[in-house]
Amino acid sequence: MSELSNDLILFNELVEVLLNEEENHPVAKRIDSNILYDTIDLSLNKSAMVDDSFKKVLKEVLISTPKTATNLFFNQLFGGRQSKAVLGDLLAVLLNNSMYTYKVAGPQVGIEQEIIRQSCDLIGYGSQSNGTFPTGGSMSNYMALIMARDAKDPSCRENGMTKPLIMYTSKASHYSNAKNASFAGLGRNNVRYIKADSTGKMIPADLEKQIKIDIENNLVPTFVNVTAGTTVLGAFDPIDEVATITEKYNIWLHVDGAYCGSVIFSDAKRHLLKGMEKSDSFSYNAHKMIGTPMTCSLILVKDKKHLHDSFSNDADYLYQTDGDDFNLGKTSFQCGRRNDALKFWTLWKSIGTNGIEKIVDNQFDLADVARNYIENHPDYTTYSYEDSISVCFNYKNIDPKVLCTLLYEHQVTVVGFGDFNEDTFVRFVTINATNTKEDILNFFKVLENFVEENQHVLETAAC
Amino acid sequence: MSELSNDLILFNELVEVLLNEEENHPVAKRIDSNILYDTIDLSLNKSAMVDDSFKKVLKEVLISTPKTATNLFFNQLFGGRQSKAVLGDLLAVLLNNSMYTYKVAGPQVGIEQEIIRQSCDLIGYGSQSNGTFPTGGSMSNYMALIMARDAKDPSCRENGMTKPLIMYTSKASHYSNAKNASFAGLGRNNVRYIKADSTGKMIPADLEKQIKIDIENNLVPTFVNVTAGTTVLGAFDPIDEVATITEKYNIWLHVDGAYCGSVIFSDAKRHLLKGMEKSDSFSYNAHKMIGTPMTCSLILVKDKKHLHDSFSNDADYLYQTDGDDFNLGKTSFQCGRRNDALKFWTLWKSIGTNGIEKIVDNQFDLADVARNYIENHPDYTTYSYEDSISVCFNYKNIDPKVLCTLLYEHQVTVVGFGDFNEDTFVRFVTINATNTKEDILNFFKVLENFVEENQHVLETAAC
Repeated sequence: MSELSNDLILFNELVEVLLNEEENHPVAKRIDSNILYDTIDLSLNKSAMVDDSFKKVLKEVLISTPKTATNLFFNQLFGGRQSKAVLGDLLAVLLNNSMYTYKVAGPQVGIEQEIIRQSCDLIGYGSQSNGTFPTGGSMSNYMALIMARDAKDPSCRENGMTKPLIMYTSKASHYSNAKNASFAGLGRNNVRYIKADSTGKMIPADLEKQIKIDIENNLVPTFVNVTAGTTVLGAFDPIDEVATITEKYNIWLHVDGAYCGSVIFSDAKRHLLKGMEKSDSFSYNAHKMIGTPMTCSLILVKDKKHLHDSFSNDADYLYQTDGDDFNLGKTSFQCGRRNDALKFWTLWKSIGTNGIEKIVDNQFDLADVARNYIENHPDYTTYSYEDSISVCFNYKNIDPKVLCTLLYEHQVTVVGFGDFNEDTFVRFVTINATNTKEDILNFFKVLENFVEENQHVLETAAC
Repeated sequence: MSELSNDLILFNELVEVLLNEEENHPVAKRIDSNILYDTIDLSLNKSAMVDDSFKKVLKEVLISTPKTATNLFFNQLFGGRQSKAVLGDLLAVLLNNSMYTYKVAGPQVGIEQEIIRQSCDLIGYGSQSNGTFPTGGSMSNYMALIMARDAKDPSCRENGMTKPLIMYTSKASHYSNAKNASFAGLGRNNVRYIKADSTGKMIPADLEKQIKIDIENNLVPTFVNVTAGTTVLGAFDPIDEVATITEKYNIWLHVDGAYCGSVIFSDAKRHLLKGMEKSDSFSYNAHKMIGTPMTCSLILVKDKKHLHDSFSNDADYLYQTDGDDFNLGKTSFQCGRRNDALKFWTLWKSIGTNGIEKIVDNQFDLADVARNYIENHPDYTTYSYEDSISVCFNYKNIDPKVLCTLLYEHQVTVVGFGDFNEDTFVRFVTINATNTKEDILNFFKVLENFVEENQHVLETAAC
């Protein structure tokens, strides 16, 4: 029997261990970071290990690795596990294609392009649109910024930054905007943070006011980022109103839908993205709302010429057969690139667009269940708004930082906190579409029981 | 039985199909890109598919996807399949952690850090060194360039590019250098392409000459990229001699070891990297020489302060427990980040550093077998040099572009061509360490038989 066959048997055995653990202990056995290296032998040594020892340490690693697929994980903007997407990603590991050329990726190129084409159709982009799969939401935003920069200052690609370019984003937007300004040569001081209203949405009037000031100062407004699902509150910026402004001043409009751009699939919720077809670029992460394994991020552009202008490069040693439309390295940041498309395709192909829609809609339904619960229980203070899958709250005025840390340290449930304006609160995210209404209500029960049983610890910790 | 259990059964069934195909047809059934969408139903539709139809189309996709793990694939700077690394990556798909915090990655953080620490030790970096796992070799080079830029022009991060920064790389280096200059705001015209000698190595004297000219013109030399394994010839730039120059002029020295930096593991070949400990940053791709699934790329820096200076960002909603040393998002380009470390760790842990060394050494041995063969057969012209795993040649003066394309179209073997100076030739890469001496000799036999049997086609095509 080949080594690979043996290792596939071992894989199946370890998956069984993992799935049993997830069922019996939905929160992983936590090892304090201070004692990590003393607790598991993670060391790499000169000599090979005997198979049994290797298996033993690998099991320990599995058991103590945080479990992101269970019904007690609510800490991040991803969670759960869509089975057909897992299947696709497991196959991608075995196939191991690099997505730069048709010669070495073959039909995987078509798989990627089909997803991109359908996504562009859902946005309402026209026949000139296209896209690619960056390595995550931050990179999607970055690629959009680079395209905007190069469109406004076309000599930049060859001669470097010459104009004082300015970008705009809501103060509630993702931190990658600040980092990206630095990476692209604009500088963090040239990011204007636009005010958000009380529900976390960008205020268009403040945007226009800021643009006017910059123009008066001979600065060059270049890029506006609106967010479809802000990181903390899950708010949707008003794309349509912002688009009126970006069209007026000829500024690139990017929709950062990393968190909630997947509502393009939802007949019920698509209105939250009204005006999206007026944007120049749009990104969404299928590894967030759609539940594929990490990472599965798309950047889509209304006019594919910008992808080519900013990212193409000739390379005779690489592009040797087939046309540019099939050699995807011409539109990517990277050279070698993992196949992040197959997992999305296996899921979408098997359950259909309607099935994806149900995944998305279910998260809003679960959020309504959660919001309804806390709004009807006087011990909770609510900081969450309609049409958001971030259900933010405080419980019995307990410091949310203390509460979340204790829940984590006691392996009760995994959830984080967030800030908005002057408030800090628990951010409970209903992004795991495989959860049921009961799972959501169970979370609150688990939380309340923990507080009940640990009054003393909470009081001590809060001091 | 759960849906996931069913899909794992399907996975095992499909892997068996795939492995049988690889054995019986080492080159995949090729579909011309022009008829791809008419040949396989890649379309995504509203409705779900019944399981049997889904399975059928998925099998078709598998069978016609280019096979990168077989003994007739020599087209890229990766190939083959290290079984224990496959195991690790399959588990990473199921675990699905994001590497930004200890709270959601737990011991996977330690796994990543142990690989980084051991790699830094092999390079000879001191106690202040650290690193991260970027998404590939291009991104590794990009992160190095950003750190160099920010070190030379510290206000750049806040205020944008203000100085005329210049970077240097050999004309034989990877094309990401030009793209990265554009992305970082330097501009492609501010890349100086340094001459290479007849074996493809950077000529240090030409580098110093160019630096002096730039200084005289009030430009600011900022970044020198040397390559450990150039893309076409697989040549090693003379790091030690270049380091003398970068130290003299206070310029950041980066070693792009994407292709062959893994020789840090080889007692026999480490001398090719003489002086590497004098560099500021060093990258290598374990998915190339070490044979993990894509992607597994490392950037290592002698002084970790530069990683923090260029890539850290506070984010209260994210960093809530444990210290910076365990919250790896503070030193990465991305926010959410796939676990690319586990696959390397499972391989390294199980076979030991000595086992990794054997993987690396075997590629040089196989290259010697290939070079010895062509040098002793008068029908071959050799364009390959000692200590390179790119064995470049022409056969019977046949146009290599024509030959490689026909071999691909006839599904004989998959190999590409390259250029250096005025010459174009077949670039045969012995990077698949699971190949044997017989596999290498078989390639030449297959090639020669094809030419013998297709004289007419070759003559027609060459006209």
